[in-house]
Amino acid sequence: MTTHTVYRTFHTRERREWVRITPDVEAAVDESGVREGMVLVSAMHITAAVWVNDDEPGILADTLEWLDKIAPPSWKSPANDVARELSPDPGDYRHHRGGEDNGDAHLKNLLVHHQVIVPVTEGELDLGPWQQIFYCEFDGRRPKRMIIKILGE
Amino acid sequence: MTTHTVYRTFHTRERREWVRITPDVEAAVDESGVREGMVLVSAMHITAAVWVNDDEPGILADTLEWLDKIAPPSWKSPANDVARELSPDPGDYRHHRGGEDNGDAHLKNLLVHHQVIVPVTEGELDLGPWQQIFYCEFDGRRPKRMIIKILGE
Amino acid sequence: MTTHTVYRTFHTRERREWVRITPDVEAAVDESGVREGMVLVSAMHITAAVWVNDDEPGILADTLEWLDKIAPPSWKSPANDVARELSPDPGDYRHHRGGEDNGDAHLKNLLVHHQVIVPVTEGELDLGPWQQIFYCEFDGRRPKRMIIKILGE
Repeated sequence: MTTHTVYRTFHTRERREWVRITPDVEAAVDESGVREGMVLVSAMHITAAVWVNDDEPGILADTLEWLDKIAPPSWKSPANDVARELSPDPGDYRHHRGGEDNGDAHLKNLLVHHQVIVPVTEGELDLGPWQQIFYCEFDGRRPKRMIIKILGE
Repeated sequence: MTTHTVYRTFHTRERREWVRITPDVEAAVDESGVREGMVLVSAMHITAAVWVNDDEPGILADTLEWLDKIAPPSWKSPANDVARELSPDPGDYRHHRGGEDNGDAHLKNLLVHHQVIVPVTEGELDLGPWQQIFYCEFDGRRPKRMIIKILGE
Repeated sequence: MTTHTVYRTFHTRERREWVRITPDVEAAVDESGVREGMVLVSAMHITAAVWVNDDEPGILADTLEWLDKIAPPSWKSPANDVARELSPDPGDYRHHRGGEDNGDAHLKNLLVHHQVIVPVTEGELDLGPWQQIFYCEFDGRRPKRMIIKILGE
């Protein structure tokens, strides 16, 4: 059995930003020499996500609009009446009493999940034609770590 | 260490359809001969999900109604005022500018996740009494692939 | 390759309760002797979740308020108008026709997921500074099982 671990640090320019990381995961698998196995790709923070979806700018913009409605940030005005009612009652997240302002990023992390497992077959990421791996930053502008861990042979 | 990989193709009659796949995953584990390990069950498309839940027709119908409200399709009228406000503003998903009409299926995929890991113990799927594995198609009527990958010994 | 399996049974006093289980997962890894690998931590019921998030009372209370709005229980009044419209139409979950009253717990389980994978590096859980593992009970007051399965070497 072989294991191989790679860490990557993101420091996004924007507070919310999607970074396509399929090449990083591929590179880690190449380094490991694993031909058959699984790769765990997991955010090490609770205000970011890792997901597999389409690398199409329209859908990425759609997801941000939608996530802001169902897990509304309180550092900007609610997107509409639904976002207003899904905001904490009354007014602000309890999490913000300690000075934080990223409560929505925690909810988004829970909603879309902080990790994926990608199968490795014959030395390649065994993804479907449209599947791309993304690191999704919900509270950036500071260093945030992610782990890539490969297990196989 | 043993690995074993099985692909399954679904071609559902309905656009949205839930297929119970516990027997497929069991068969793949039997074929592999693995006694202790993990099985990854993962959709290879970004408009379908794999989940573990109850095989009870009521809850399956409940999930579809609910998913259509929080990730509303734009190819039919919004289910109610909440679905209308959770729809993209204004009008339609940006993803649909290229001619697609499955933006909601992408959001549903992110929401309920495209994969599960099932533990294998003593050669059996180590599931709780009510846990059944489902492939959940959100944009079917065409061939869609899923991977079952077993790792263990 | 080493595998090690531990079951834990929860019997929470409250219907909904979050239990921090990082020490349980650490103990299972210690017992296994695994230095490099992965741990699957997975609820064996379809009305509970396992997630990784902050151990901060404010955010935990925020998540419950928010989950009750987007996956509303029908055994208490809807939290507000959004929760009312996200409730099944008309009135109650189809799942409740058989006498159950935990339809919302199924939806919450799908939403925040019933499992996580934690990487193990140099014999330790390889978590970020704020990442804690929680068992999240949505329908307790009865025995519910969870599996911890370690795979590595």
